[in-house]
Amino acid sequence: MPEMPDSIDDTSPVTAAMVIIGNEILSGRTQDANLAYAATRLNDFGIQMREVRVIPDVEATIIATVNELRQKFHYVFTTGGIGPTHDDITAESIAKAFKVPIAIDPMARALLKEHYGADNLTEARLRMARVPEGAVLIDNPLSRAPGFQIGNVLVMAGVPVVMKSMIDSVAPRLIGGNPVLSRTVTALVRESDIAIGLENIQSKYDTVEIGSYPFFKKNMVGANLVLRGTDAALLEQVVGDLKSLIRDLGAEPLDETPA
Amino acid sequence: MPEMPDSIDDTSPVTAAMVIIGNEILSGRTQDANLAYAATRLNDFGIQMREVRVIPDVEATIIATVNELRQKFHYVFTTGGIGPTHDDITAESIAKAFKVPIAIDPMARALLKEHYGADNLTEARLRMARVPEGAVLIDNPLSRAPGFQIGNVLVMAGVPVVMKSMIDSVAPRLIGGNPVLSRTVTALVRESDIAIGLENIQSKYDTVEIGSYPFFKKNMVGANLVLRGTDAALLEQVVGDLKSLIRDLGAEPLDETPA
Repeated sequence: MPEMPDSIDDTSPVTAAMVIIGNEILSGRTQDANLAYAATRLNDFGIQMREVRVIPDVEATIIATVNELRQKFHYVFTTGGIGPTHDDITAESIAKAFKVPIAIDPMARALLKEHYGADNLTEARLRMARVPEGAVLIDNPLSRAPGFQIGNVLVMAGVPVVMKSMIDSVAPRLIGGNPVLSRTVTALVRESDIAIGLENIQSKYDTVEIGSYPFFKKNMVGANLVLRGTDAALLEQVVGDLKSLIRDLGAEPLDETPA
Repeated sequence: MPEMPDSIDDTSPVTAAMVIIGNEILSGRTQDANLAYAATRLNDFGIQMREVRVIPDVEATIIATVNELRQKFHYVFTTGGIGPTHDDITAESIAKAFKVPIAIDPMARALLKEHYGADNLTEARLRMARVPEGAVLIDNPLSRAPGFQIGNVLVMAGVPVVMKSMIDSVAPRLIGGNPVLSRTVTALVRESDIAIGLENIQSKYDTVEIGSYPFFKKNMVGANLVLRGTDAALLEQVVGDLKSLIRDLGAEPLDETPA
């Protein structure tokens, strides 16, 4: 994986990738609800999401994907496939990716025993206590069955409420850089009318990323101009330039997209 | 890319990957709304979505991702980055991926001229008429600026209404295999109680994929059991086995998830 920044004053970004494991997302049956939350929450802690992959419940694919991404990014987050059924193969696949054995973790077993009761600790439920050797558990306050972290890979549940509680519990303990701040200015002009002016502004500021996202709604055409960067004062300056540009085009800049 | 099936009786699946290009999805600001529609619609035409990547508006990343995926899958669909602004770099990047020049396409130019009027065909708007050499246009009935197909790569807009109309216009002309059919049975039992029985049923049927997706809502715990395969009669048989399993556990199988 890339080297971590040396200090909190270092401006090198801390990066992450996410692997969404699940045939149900790929088939279109279920809409992913985890990426937006994870990306936003990680950014609060100075970790920037740089790539996401949605892959099927296929062992070889999980192994290859995780092994590629954990070399490229500081952190890799996986969601899905850590339940008790036959199609839950994430923990086993991650152990194979790291070439370590997998076994029932005593702490995870204790959590499940407390949750289900000693008499109901079935074989299927004990599957959820299996973690790769050397992994650290990630707390699941909701349904107890934990996630885990091994190396720079964090393995989380796919059910959105559980995934949210897991990311909330691990994010504060990760090493992050400067959070990316963003400002949005809405222009009620066609994107193609503002394009040249926008390019000129972008070329003046190389540490602020300007994205233009057009919208079309009930007789209204416009674009949300989204600025992203780590320097709040500089963002404010670019907001000023953008507002002048929009006024030069005869429109009034808005701070919010009209409903 | 993998070889196409020889005939419509061939059971080899026709596969696709999707590349969602856009910093706004990666940052969590915007929720992707295209994957679920594209996957469902392509499946109607016998094309199975096998991998999705969300990547930033970075030329080298777009080139490497598209070149990797177009070798692995029959079709690659991209969304995003074909508008008129400086951050719209998809068409240029695809041309570089295929090592072909990019130029203004006369047909695309004519479409834009008709839409905006000859006097308003600005430099920024003409950017949207640039397509790689050898590409075929994809119709955009909504805002005219077309997508395009080059080789097995189909380049579409990111705005969901436009993307939907583009996929509807191209899907029928693609070569597909047998559509994957699906059936869902809902069990109001804990997933961990049904896991062993489910694994036994799965082991009987190697051409039907059984997925188990737990849910937790207002005092109700259960799992949606989703069967996927191309043989309708066989799916029906597996549905029968699942319903027996659920009844053996003392619950009544449901055809729909309770609200």
